[in-house]
Amino acid sequence: MDAKTRLELQQLLKTSHVASLATLHGGAPAVSMVPWASATDGASLLIHVSGLSQHTGDMLADPRVALMIAEPESSGTMVQALPRVMIHGAAREIDRDSSDYEAAKRAYLERHPRAEVTFDLGDFSIFAIEPRSTRYVAGFGRAYDVEQAELARALRDER
Amino acid sequence: MDAKTRLELQQLLKTSHVASLATLHGGAPAVSMVPWASATDGASLLIHVSGLSQHTGDMLADPRVALMIAEPESSGTMVQALPRVMIHGAAREIDRDSSDYEAAKRAYLERHPRAEVTFDLGDFSIFAIEPRSTRYVAGFGRAYDVEQAELARALRDER
Repeated sequence: MDAKTRLELQQLLKTSHVASLATLHGGAPAVSMVPWASATDGASLLIHVSGLSQHTGDMLADPRVALMIAEPESSGTMVQALPRVMIHGAAREIDRDSSDYEAAKRAYLERHPRAEVTFDLGDFSIFAIEPRSTRYVAGFGRAYDVEQAELARALRDER
Repeated sequence: MDAKTRLELQQLLKTSHVASLATLHGGAPAVSMVPWASATDGASLLIHVSGLSQHTGDMLADPRVALMIAEPESSGTMVQALPRVMIHGAAREIDRDSSDYEAAKRAYLERHPRAEVTFDLGDFSIFAIEPRSTRYVAGFGRAYDVEQAELARALRDER
């Protein structure tokens, strides 16, 4: 990735606050929508999910997930060329009593201040998704494998 | 679903031309972006995919897929409340020599006229995704299971 492409990725991460989360549900693929935020160090993506939702059960049963962050369609761009980044990784629940929890909560609420009320609900928890491999499609014929360090930098710089 | 909710679902299907496609990749979940169209009878959703892409190989290896069609985020709506519909189903490649192919191609191109050029490429094919179960989230606390006949009607009416 050159400097221009790197900036485009950072811009995509900055402007898109929701992601498509693919999980395994009883061995079959499932997909849902999740608001997301970067961890402070950029090493993971944070989601805050209800224990009642299907994706939470899926991640507890099998931590393998894929996350797609895509630019919303607009009348100008051909849909086939919409920028998007696909991240394959493992989801880990952050223990509410661990030292990581408060920092993760702060990072999440910085991006999603209106979600504060959900932190008072007992059945919500934070999962950190740790990327294993990342593919970025910047447009037509512009697809890149993104190294872990590069993604972490983009996630840090997005904040 | 009442009449108002039914209209909202139809509106979502009408305005959102791209979907998030979850597939199984070597047993792990994967997610990608696909433009989609309704089949004329509303019984399936059509996608046109390259034989070189990962999701095509995934669907040929295991037809189970999940498709999410979501309203793009906008500054007004809380992201947690964005309307979206999740469809679990099976993907079936439509044989280029079958009688279904021309009708599927026409239905797809009606919605994605600029994709015409990709039909001249030898390595693209149409997959029909036949819904098995559908969940529609219309907003906060407004989630519905959608019967197959009801989804087919919404897909027909969307056209």
